[in-house]
This record gives sequence, structure tokens and C-alpha cells, in this order.
Amino acid sequence: MTDLPTTTERTDHPAPPGEVLAGYLHARAGAFLRALPLAVGEAGSRTGSLPSGGGPQAAATGTGELLRCVRRIGGALHTYSAAFEPEWAEQTRTELRWLLELLAQEPGYVRRSARLLAALDSLSETDPRRPGMLAGHAGAPKARALMERQLTLARTRAHTALLQELRSARLHALADRMTLLAGEVPLVAGGGGELRVQVADALGLLSAGVAALPPARAPYGGEGLHRLGAVPAQSSPVDPVGAVQQAAEVAADAALAADDAPWHRVRILVKRARYALEVCGAGLAELDGIDRVLDRHQEAADAAVTVSTAARTPRITPATAYVLGVVHADQRLEVEASRYAFGHQWPTLQHHGWHEWASC
Amino acid sequence: MTDLPTTTERTDHPAPPGEVLAGYLHARAGAFLRALPLAVGEAGSRTGSLPSGGGPQAAATGTGELLRCVRRIGGALHTYSAAFEPEWAEQTRTELRWLLELLAQEPGYVRRSARLLAALDSLSETDPRRPGMLAGHAGAPKARALMERQLTLARTRAHTALLQELRSARLHALADRMTLLAGEVPLVAGGGGELRVQVADALGLLSAGVAALPPARAPYGGEGLHRLGAVPAQSSPVDPVGAVQQAAEVAADAALAADDAPWHRVRILVKRARYALEVCGAGLAELDGIDRVLDRHQEAADAAVTVSTAARTPRITPATAYVLGVVHADQRLEVEASRYAFGHQWPTLQHHGWHEWASC
Repeated sequence: MTDLPTTTERTDHPAPPGEVLAGYLHARAGAFLRALPLAVGEAGSRTGSLPSGGGPQAAATGTGELLRCVRRIGGALHTYSAAFEPEWAEQTRTELRWLLELLAQEPGYVRRSARLLAALDSLSETDPRRPGMLAGHAGAPKARALMERQLTLARTRAHTALLQELRSARLHALADRMTLLAGEVPLVAGGGGELRVQVADALGLLSAGVAALPPARAPYGGEGLHRLGAVPAQSSPVDPVGAVQQAAEVAADAALAADDAPWHRVRILVKRARYALEVCGAGLAELDGIDRVLDRHQEAADAAVTVSTAARTPRITPATAYVLGVVHADQRLEVEASRYAFGHQWPTLQHHGWHEWASC
Repeated sequence: MTDLPTTTERTDHPAPPGEVLAGYLHARAGAFLRALPLAVGEAGSRTGSLPSGGGPQAAATGTGELLRCVRRIGGALHTYSAAFEPEWAEQTRTELRWLLELLAQEPGYVRRSARLLAALDSLSETDPRRPGMLAGHAGAPKARALMERQLTLARTRAHTALLQELRSARLHALADRMTLLAGEVPLVAGGGGELRVQVADALGLLSAGVAALPPARAPYGGEGLHRLGAVPAQSSPVDPVGAVQQAAEVAADAALAADDAPWHRVRILVKRARYALEVCGAGLAELDGIDRVLDRHQEAADAAVTVSTAARTPRITPATAYVLGVVHADQRLEVEASRYAFGHQWPTLQHHGWHEWASC
């Protein structure tokens, strides 16, 4: 893995499992502690002059690196949980999840804004050589302004929340945990056994998650935007029966959320598998590709909800609402496109790269 | 061809070209004359009690058969034009086109209504096992009522126009032409040469039309609803530069119309090739399949225009407009799906069935 720091203790001979795990966590915790002050500085420097349309500040290096560390440490603590003192690992993971959510909000809104405004600009493109289906539509500028305003507001709120928490005792306590982890990993006696067994478990959970996905829909099968897949009742976090009994448009969002839920679960399982392999110094390019596809799936699904929420803004014009309807459908089409791409890439992963983890 | 009447004069030995053509036109003109009074009766019987949602009356046997005859006679007169007295053939084709347009309007609105209401019902399906992306949306019933009302109105107008023209001197004159054709086909001396040469010309024009189509877009290529294909300037009936300079939403419809135009032309060439082959008693199942795909393309494109027009109705609610935006996008997705299906079926036709016409 290219982003493993060179300080990781690795030798030409296979290291004992506990040593590999400890080395990985030392390095990641060290990187966390170096990135934290950078991220705090970046967040502070954005306070007074929040750019409305996103920009390079959004992909700030400190925040990005901190997010990468948080995801990887959390993933390792989850996958290799048998190796750690259970209470410590559980508490640390809870705190890491809290920080992850806090950090991810603002860049998420920046990406969503960029995605939706680019989609709208493309849909309303008037260049006669490449017109969009909303070319020159009167509602397009209003819909654009509405989405931009709402996403800027959401981003500002996320930023304010982040600034508050970056000074909190809770963050200081988490930093203390990371300082401990950078020096000494609280492993249980025996180190939790062979890493490859736990990697195999992570990959097995991923396979099971994929097997539980609704059957693939053919591209352009005429069901792109309707007849969403049936949602297995036992695994859905949203009760679709209860949801559709609610009034009005919120029910549609709930139905879509239920449709998306198994995909979002697979996305988490893919990330866990990636990070589990990374501990062993192994990586699968195909798995990275699938992770990107499912990130796109998640972002398009979230963007569709944003559009559908924007369409419920009081006193918008019918032309604005019409354009939002088209943009919503377009984002749902992106969701379907991601599933289609996943359906193509997953068999390739299984056939060509799946057993590389045996190098752990 | 299953719908060739058994009265066609055919022998075990190849008949001379002129005889084949005359036999085909005799039979079709006879069928025209039998179907005409049925169609007039059907149209009259619908006058007082026009069903709002379409139904079996719309696919009335007399009108359907009359449409089939009109298309085939017109197609034969076009493809084998060298065989006929030019002035007579040209005038007859003009009158057949007039009747075709007149007859096709009402069933077209019935099909469009059925298509759009079915799409909306499917998109707003609330069954938790198969919810649509508009499940339970408050705007769905209003959008449904609006589309149904506008299409019923259009259908009523088309019906009234049809009733008037069915009593007109113009129709009587056309019936007289068909009576003549049922007895004696005005062929030129020599009969216009080998039929297969003219079939080959029709198939060649079709190939050229297909070659002029914009490059295929990949399914789910992320360009489904935007970045429509560049329209070759020389072949477009709509000037896209002029169109996008018009104000507001009409420009979007014009851009879409320009995008669809080369496909609509290919549809006409497919029908001409089908009817040309039918004269020889040859038929290609693949060509019939492609004809159905392009019919679907045309109907989805027309339906999208209807939705976009409905969205410009004054005083509709934003929720209604939003739903219409989704339905518009859904119909444009059907357009793309048809093009994708065409892209799959066309090579099969070329490789497996293209040379069967040599039996002419």
C-alpha cells in the first residue's frame, strides 16, 4: 500500500501477527496525531470566509489525512477485535465513529453541491452540439440557486458543529487514546491468532452481504426509476411498510432509502475488507475500484434525497420543481448506473484477485 | 408474411415482377375497401361516449386494418415508384399520407395516455415490495389527472377531425383511387425492372440512415439524460442553433426533437424496407423487431414532449410539476433504452437476416 508510512516495522521475514497489527496501529495513530492539529488549523481558517461553492479548501490535506486514519484504525479495531482488550477497543471505536461523522459532514456537503450543480449545468447545457434535456429551461437557474443555497447552509452548520467539537474534551480524550496507541497497543495475550483468519472472515462477510443484494436489474431494462428491488424485510433499517403509510413525499424517500440500504451495508463491508487487507500490506486494485463505485452509489443516493427535500421548499415555482424532478431522476439513474457497474466489477474481483489476501 | 391474404396470385414458379407487384396492390387495395366502412362505423359509434382512459375501442379492428393497408400501399408506391405512372403514384401517396396522419392521431393519443399513466402509476407504486421512486408522492394524483385531462382533450379533438374527414369528398376520391387499384394497377411498360433491385435500394437507404446516427451512448454511461448526441447539421429538420435562442423551456423540447430526428428517419426507412420485402413475400423477423423498438422510441419521445408541455400548464402546483419532471426524465430514459436495444439488434439483423431479401 502506497500510503503505509516507511516507519512501519517490517522485515524480510514474516513478523508475528501481533507485531504486524501493533506496527500498523502505531503508524496510523502517529499519523492521526500529526494530522489532527493540521485539521484543526484548516477548520479554523475557514471560519470567516466560507466559500459558497466548495473548492480546494474542502479537500484540505489535514482533514483528509485525519479521515483516512480514523477509518483505518476503526476498521482494524473492528476486524481484529479478538486481538484487543474488548472494552478498550469498543470504546475507542465508538469515539472514532463520532469523529468520523463529525469530520465527514462538511466535505460531504461540498462534494454533493459540486455533484448536483454539475449535473444541473450539464442537463441545462445549451451548446447546440451537446444540449441537455433541460437546455434553456427557465426553471434551471432558480433550481440551481435553491440547491446551492440549501447546501451552503447545511455546510455552514456542519462547519460550526465541527469547530465546536474540535475544542471539546471529548476530542482531547480521543487524542489521548491515540497517543497511547502510538506507543503501545493493548493486545490480549496471544495477539488474537492468525491475521489471515480474520481477513478471511471480513471477506466472507462481504461475500455474504453481496449475496444478500436484490437481483441485478438489467441496464435500460425499463425499470430504471420504478419497480425498485424488493427489500429483504429482516435486513432493512427502515420499515418500508410503516414508511409508506406516512403521508406524502417523505414515503418516497423512505422507500428509496430502504432500497439503498443493502448497498450501503455492502459499502461498509468493502471498506472493512480493504482496511483489513491493508494491515497485512496486501491490497486489491479491484476492491479499491468497487469501493469507489459504492462511494458514487452512496453520494448519488444522498444527492437524490437532497433534491427531493429541496422540492418540498415552500413557495417554489412549478418550473423550479419540474427541474428538481428531472435532477432527482438523474441522480437515481446514477444510483442504478453504480449498481450496474458493481455488477460488472464484482465477478472480476472474485475471479482474479480474491485470493491475494492469502499473503497475509 | 402471415397477413398476406390468400387471394394473392402466387404460383410455384417465380412470377414476373410487374405481376407480383400488381397482385400485392390488388390485395391491399381490396383490404382497404373492406376496412374503410368498418373504420367509419367504429369512429361514428365512439362519438357520443368517448371513454376517457382509452380501451379496446381504440385498437378497433377496422381502423387498425385500414392503417396497415395505407402504410403498405404507400410504402410499395414509394419503393417501387419506377414501376408506376409517376403523377398517379405521387398523388396517391400524398392522399395516403393525409389519411395515415388522420387515422393515426386518435389511437396515438390513446397509446400515449396508457403509456404515461402506466409509467406514473408504476413510479408512484406504494407496494412495499416494489415501491417506485415517487411512492406516495402527493403530486402524483394531480399530475395523473392533468395528463389524463390533456390527453383526453387531444384525443377528442383528433376524433372530431377524423369524423369530419371521413365524410369528406377527399376521402371519397381516395376510395375511388383504391377501387381502381383493386382492379388494375397503372404500371408503366416494363414494370420498372427487377423488384430485388428496388428492395436492395430500400435496404441500402436504411443502412445509410443507420450509419448517419450519432455514435451509441453506453448504457448507464452517466450521460443518460444529459449531453445528448451532437446533431448532424445537414440532416436535422430543427435548426438547433435557432432553437436554443428561443426563450425558456421550448428550447429544451427543440433540442430533444433535434436529437431524436435521425432516429425517427431511420424508423421510416425500416418500415419502408419491411413493406418492400413484404411485396416479395419475404420477411425478416429481426426487421420487425427493430421496427417495434423504433416505434417504442418514437412513442416515448412523443410522450416526453406531452409531459413537458403539461408542465407548462399555468397554475399547477410545484408538487405536480416535480412529478412531471420525474415522468419526463423517465420517458427520456425509455428513449435511451430503445436506442440501446436498437444498437444490440441492428448488428444481429445485418449478420443473420440481411440477405434473405435475395429471395425476391
